[in-house]
Amino acid sequence: MGTKIRAAIVGSTGYGGVELIRFLLQHPLVEITSVISSSNAGAPIADAYPHLAEIVTDRLDAIDPALIKSKADVVFTATPHGVSSALVPQFLEAGLKVIDLSGDFRLKSGEVYEQWYKHKPAPEELIAKAVYGLAEVFGDEILGVDLISNPGCYPTATLLGLIPALAAGWIDPKTIITDAKTGVSGGGRGLSLGFHYSEINENFLAYKVNKHQHLPEIEQVLSRIAGKEVVTTFTAHLVPMTRGILCTSYASLTEPHTDAEFIELYRTYYEGRPFVRIRPEGKVPATKEVWGSNYCDIGFSTDPRTGRLTIISVIDNLVKGAAGQAIQNLNLMMGWDETTGLTMAPVYP
Amino acid sequence: MGTKIRAAIVGSTGYGGVELIRFLLQHPLVEITSVISSSNAGAPIADAYPHLAEIVTDRLDAIDPALIKSKADVVFTATPHGVSSALVPQFLEAGLKVIDLSGDFRLKSGEVYEQWYKHKPAPEELIAKAVYGLAEVFGDEILGVDLISNPGCYPTATLLGLIPALAAGWIDPKTIITDAKTGVSGGGRGLSLGFHYSEINENFLAYKVNKHQHLPEIEQVLSRIAGKEVVTTFTAHLVPMTRGILCTSYASLTEPHTDAEFIELYRTYYEGRPFVRIRPEGKVPATKEVWGSNYCDIGFSTDPRTGRLTIISVIDNLVKGAAGQAIQNLNLMMGWDETTGLTMAPVYP
Amino acid sequence: MGTKIRAAIVGSTGYGGVELIRFLLQHPLVEITSVISSSNAGAPIADAYPHLAEIVTDRLDAIDPALIKSKADVVFTATPHGVSSALVPQFLEAGLKVIDLSGDFRLKSGEVYEQWYKHKPAPEELIAKAVYGLAEVFGDEILGVDLISNPGCYPTATLLGLIPALAAGWIDPKTIITDAKTGVSGGGRGLSLGFHYSEINENFLAYKVNKHQHLPEIEQVLSRIAGKEVVTTFTAHLVPMTRGILCTSYASLTEPHTDAEFIELYRTYYEGRPFVRIRPEGKVPATKEVWGSNYCDIGFSTDPRTGRLTIISVIDNLVKGAAGQAIQNLNLMMGWDETTGLTMAPVYP
Amino acid sequence: MGTKIRAAIVGSTGYGGVELIRFLLQHPLVEITSVISSSNAGAPIADAYPHLAEIVTDRLDAIDPALIKSKADVVFTATPHGVSSALVPQFLEAGLKVIDLSGDFRLKSGEVYEQWYKHKPAPEELIAKAVYGLAEVFGDEILGVDLISNPGCYPTATLLGLIPALAAGWIDPKTIITDAKTGVSGGGRGLSLGFHYSEINENFLAYKVNKHQHLPEIEQVLSRIAGKEVVTTFTAHLVPMTRGILCTSYASLTEPHTDAEFIELYRTYYEGRPFVRIRPEGKVPATKEVWGSNYCDIGFSTDPRTGRLTIISVIDNLVKGAAGQAIQNLNLMMGWDETTGLTMAPVYP
Repeated sequence: MGTKIRAAIVGSTGYGGVELIRFLLQHPLVEITSVISSSNAGAPIADAYPHLAEIVTDRLDAIDPALIKSKADVVFTATPHGVSSALVPQFLEAGLKVIDLSGDFRLKSGEVYEQWYKHKPAPEELIAKAVYGLAEVFGDEILGVDLISNPGCYPTATLLGLIPALAAGWIDPKTIITDAKTGVSGGGRGLSLGFHYSEINENFLAYKVNKHQHLPEIEQVLSRIAGKEVVTTFTAHLVPMTRGILCTSYASLTEPHTDAEFIELYRTYYEGRPFVRIRPEGKVPATKEVWGSNYCDIGFSTDPRTGRLTIISVIDNLVKGAAGQAIQNLNLMMGWDETTGLTMAPVYP
Repeated sequence: MGTKIRAAIVGSTGYGGVELIRFLLQHPLVEITSVISSSNAGAPIADAYPHLAEIVTDRLDAIDPALIKSKADVVFTATPHGVSSALVPQFLEAGLKVIDLSGDFRLKSGEVYEQWYKHKPAPEELIAKAVYGLAEVFGDEILGVDLISNPGCYPTATLLGLIPALAAGWIDPKTIITDAKTGVSGGGRGLSLGFHYSEINENFLAYKVNKHQHLPEIEQVLSRIAGKEVVTTFTAHLVPMTRGILCTSYASLTEPHTDAEFIELYRTYYEGRPFVRIRPEGKVPATKEVWGSNYCDIGFSTDPRTGRLTIISVIDNLVKGAAGQAIQNLNLMMGWDETTGLTMAPVYP
Repeated sequence: MGTKIRAAIVGSTGYGGVELIRFLLQHPLVEITSVISSSNAGAPIADAYPHLAEIVTDRLDAIDPALIKSKADVVFTATPHGVSSALVPQFLEAGLKVIDLSGDFRLKSGEVYEQWYKHKPAPEELIAKAVYGLAEVFGDEILGVDLISNPGCYPTATLLGLIPALAAGWIDPKTIITDAKTGVSGGGRGLSLGFHYSEINENFLAYKVNKHQHLPEIEQVLSRIAGKEVVTTFTAHLVPMTRGILCTSYASLTEPHTDAEFIELYRTYYEGRPFVRIRPEGKVPATKEVWGSNYCDIGFSTDPRTGRLTIISVIDNLVKGAAGQAIQNLNLMMGWDETTGLTMAPVYP
Repeated sequence: MGTKIRAAIVGSTGYGGVELIRFLLQHPLVEITSVISSSNAGAPIADAYPHLAEIVTDRLDAIDPALIKSKADVVFTATPHGVSSALVPQFLEAGLKVIDLSGDFRLKSGEVYEQWYKHKPAPEELIAKAVYGLAEVFGDEILGVDLISNPGCYPTATLLGLIPALAAGWIDPKTIITDAKTGVSGGGRGLSLGFHYSEINENFLAYKVNKHQHLPEIEQVLSRIAGKEVVTTFTAHLVPMTRGILCTSYASLTEPHTDAEFIELYRTYYEGRPFVRIRPEGKVPATKEVWGSNYCDIGFSTDPRTGRLTIISVIDNLVKGAAGQAIQNLNLMMGWDETTGLTMAPVYP
C-alpha cells in the first residue's frame, strides 16, 4: 500500500520500542521501515527479542538522520532523557516529524528540567515548539504539528484522573496528593539491582519519594488547567508485576458532590474520547482491566466524613503511558481517527 | 460488512471464551453476534469482565440452540467436558458449524474417554465425525467440515514438538517422556484451593502425576503418527504465572543426528505453517516469547553422551492452546488464510 | 520443661494460625498443646498443611472450652470476626487467658463496630476489659491482663508510622491520609474470585475504598493519641505478592521539621522497643526487608515545597500484623522479654 | 557463652551468605564473629541488606586469612567457583576448618571440572581431601574433617530423590532423566539480563540444556552409588519465583514395585534423618512446603503402563540447597545433632 506513512523507531530495543513495533504492525496506515538501535546496529532485532522472530526480519539500523530521512516520514524517539534532546533537533532539521517519548520536551522551563532531571535541557525553541500530547486533553493542538512530546506514564494516569474535577473547580488544588504505583517495566531494560528479580519479586516499595522527575510535569499541567500555580505531592511505588500503573489521587472537595455527579462530570468531559472509560458507581478499576491496551479507566469514591474525593485511575504504562499514546498522537497529528491501530482489547487474564 | 460469518461463543465468561472474544474482535471476516453463558444470561458481560466495558456491550444470551441458530453460523463451545458432549449434538442438529474446545470429542475411544475423564462419552457417531484440529498436522482435513475438536493445550505443545521427529523415525517412540509446565489460567476461572493466590504464588508443583486426561490424547496422536501403539509418560506441573506452557520432551535417537539436522527436519515439516517457529542452533524458546499470540516455538538439544534428544516447545495455553487455534481452525474450515485475525505479535515484556 | 506455658490455637488452619504455630515452635517458654479447627477436628494438621508434616503431629481438636482448659493456659483465637465474639466469653469463663486476633474486641463502641463490620458486637463488658495490644505504644497496659485484642494488620503499620509525630504535635491530624497496600495472604485461605490466582497475578487494585473496617480502628487510636476526635482517609490496595504491608501516610506539618528531626523523634519514642527500626535519612523501607519477621520499619520524607510529611511504614502482615504481635503480647502479658521466640531475622531474598 | 564455635562467612553479601547469617543467628552453639566481603569491606552489612539493620551491626571484613584465623574457628566460603579454589587452601593452611559452598571441590576429576566449569581446578590433594557433604547419604564421613564440599542445589534435590531406589537396584541407571526447575535466587545477586525482573516474571524457560555444570556432579554420585558409571540426562529450568527447586526424575523399574513399596524403601533408607520427609501414597510435595527450611520432601508415582517411576523431590535452594545443608554439615563435623539451629518450620504461605 504505497500511501502508508513510513515510520522509523529509534530505541527499538527498549521496552517502549518493542511495544511501538507491536502496535504499528497492526496499524493499517503505517509501515515500519526502520528499526534503530544505538548499540546493536546490523543485527536482526530477533537476536535481542526472539518473540519478534519471523515477524520483524529487518536488521537494526544505526542512528543516522540522513538514512532515517531516506526511509521514513515520521520518527518515534523512544530514547532516554538526555539522548532525545540531542537527537530530535537533527531529525527535525532533516525534515522528519518526531514523536518523542522521553522527558526532554515536556517541561516548558529549562531550569525546572535541569533541577529534576540533572541534565542540560533541550534547545529552548524546540521546547517551545513541542506540543504536549496528552491526547484526551490537548488533542486539539496536535493536528499537523512536527514535534510531539509524549507524556510520561505517571503523568498520563494522574492527569487524566484529576483534570476534569480540577477544571470544574470541584476540588481544591492545594490539597491534591497522588499515590502512584507502577509495574517494573517502567524502569526499562537496563540492568540495576533495583530491577533484579530476586530483589523485586514479593516486594513492594516506594522510591524517589518527593524527588520523582514526573512531579514537575504533573504540576505544570495542573497549573495550566487551574490557571494558577499548583504545588502537589506525588509518591512513586514499585509493584512486583511487569505492567500497569494505578494512581490513587486525593483532594478535598470545594463543595459537596456525589460519586454519581463525578461520574457524570467525567463522562461529559471525555465524551468522544474512546480510550477513557469511567466506571459505574461503587466500582473502581484494576490495572489488569487495561493490560496491553490503550485504555485509561477511572473510578471515584467521595467520603462525606472527610470531605475528600478519592480517584483511582489505571493505565498500561507501556501503552497509554508510552507507545500507545504515541501512536494515538500520530493519528491525531495525521488527522486520522485516534483509535487507528489501537483497537485491540485488553489481554485478560 | 454483510458477508461476515456470524459467530456465537458458548462459555464466553470462561478464560477461553474471553480470549475468543479478544481475537474475534480483530478478525476481518467474523462478527461476534452472541456471547453466551449458562449462568449470567441477561447481564452485560462487562459485569463479569470490566476489561470489556464499552468494547462488548451485548448482554449475555442463554444457551438456546434455536436462538443461537437465528443469530449465528458457527458456534464455539468453550465449555467444560461433560457439557460440550451434551450441547454439541443440539447445535449440529440446528445446522450450526461447531468448534469445540473441550475434551469431549478428542478421544476416538469412548472407553478410554470414560477411564480418564470419569464421564460418559459423547455419541459415538459424533466422535467419529469430529476432526481433530491440530492445524499444522491435520490442517488438510479441516476444510468444509461441521465439527472440529480443538486440541488440548498440553497436547498441542507436546505434539507439535514431537511429531516431525517421530514421523521421520528419528526417535524411538517407546522412550518418549514429556515433562510439561503450565501457567495457572489453564485451570480456568472456577474457584479451588489449588488456584488460591497465596497457595500458588511462589510455589511450583506437579499434579495428576500419571493421571492427566491429556495423556491418552497425546498417545492417540503419537500412535497415529507412528503407525503403531505408543505408550508414553507425561507429567503436568503448575508454574506461578498466568499464561504459557513449556513442554520438555525426551526421547532416544534411533540413529545419530545433530541439532542442525533436527532444525532442518522441522523447518521442512512446518514449511508454510507460519505459527510454528523453529529456534536456531543453541537456542531454546521461553514461554514469554509467545505470550498472547498463536505461535508455537520449538528448540532442540541432542546429547551424544546419552543418545537422547531434548525438545523444548512453548505456546500460550489460552491462544495456541485454546482460542487461537480454534480460530485458526475456523479459518481452515472456511478456506481462509489460517492467520486471519491472528497476526498480533506476542506481547513483550 | 514443666514450667512452660501451655498454649492452644483456635483457627489453626487459617494463615494466622499456622504462623502462630511456626513461631511458637521456636518459643522457649511456650508449648503448643492443642491445635484447634472448627471443621477438620480429628484429622492431622498436615493433611491441610503438608509443610507441617512430621513437625506438628497432633490431630486437630474440636472447639470445646472445657477440653481446651484441660490442656492449655492461654488460647489464641485466630478466628474470623463474628466468631471470636462468641468464643472468647466461653474461654474467659473457663479461666483461660485469651489473645484474640479478630476485630471483635478492638472497637470500643459497639455501634461503630456494627456499622463497619455488619455484625452484632461482642458483650460490652468484655470490650471494655480487652486491652488493645499495640505493643510499642500500649505495652505498659498489658502485663497480667486476661484478654488482649490484637491490632489489625493495617492499623499496626499505619499507627506505628503516625503516632510519634501525632503525639509530638508535629503533624495536623485533620490532614492525615494513609494509602495502604497489602499482600494477598491478608485475605486468608477462604476462596473467592478476588483471590483467584489468575485474577490477582499481574494485577494491582484498590478495594473497599472509604469502607474498610480498619478505618475506625485507626481513627479510635489516633483520637486517643491526639486527645480529640480524628477523622482520616484510608485506602486499601491489593499487591500481587503473598506477604507484606506498606503504608504511605501523608500529613501537613504544623511547623517546619527536617527528616533528621523526625528520625530523632521516632528513635526516642521507640527506644527500648527492638521491633521498630527507623531508617536513616534518605532511606525508606521495603516490605521484603521485614518478610517473615516481627519488625516494623519506618522511613520519612518531608517536603518543604508542600509542607507535608510522607511516612513509609512496613510490616509482614502475618507476623507483626497478626501472629508475631500476638506472641509479643503474650510475652508482655507474662512479663517476659517482648522478643522471646520472635528473634528470627527477616527471610531475604 | 564462651564455648561457642566462632564462625566467619566469606561472601556474606551474596544470597547464600545472608542465608547463612539468618540461620547461624539461631544456632545455640555458634557465634558469627566475622562477615566478610571482597568488595564492601568496612561498610555495615545493613548498607547492602537493610533487613539486617540492628541485627548484624558488624562492619564487613576484608578477605584476610590471618585476620579470619584470629577471629574464627570455622569459615564458610559462599564464594563463586574459581574464587573458592584460590581461598580455601589459604584458610586450611591458617588452621581453619572450611565448609565450601562453591562447586570447586565437588568433582573428583580435575579434567571433568575444567570441561564443565571452564576454570582451572583446585589443587588435587585438596579435592581428594574434601568430603562431599550430602548429609543424609554421606553423613558418616563428616565427623572431624577439615574440609567439606557442600553439594550443589540441583544435585541435592536430584540425588536425595534417586539414591535409595538406585541403591536398592529398583531402577535402571541407564534410563534416569531428571527435569529440574529452580527459583531465581539460585542465580545469585549478580546482575544479568537473564535475571532482570521484566524478562523473567511471567516467564518459564530452560537453560544450559545438556550443559549444566551440576550434571557431572550428579553423575559422579550416581556412579558411586550404582558401583558403575552412570550417564544421565538433566535439564535445568527457571521458574518465576524466588526460592525453591523441584526435580522430576524418571527411571524405568527393573522389576515391578508399587508406590507403597517405594515409600517404605525410602522411609527405611532415611530413617533417623529428620530433614527428609516422604509423602504418603498418592501425594507429591510442592516447593512451598519446604520454603525457608532445611527439608527435602519426596513423593512417588509408579506407572504400570510404562514401567516407569516418577520421583518428585523438593528443597529450598538457598537452605537445603546451600546454607542450611552447610550448617547441617557443620553440625555433623562437630558431632552435634544435625538439626541444631535448623529446626525452624517452613514459612507458609
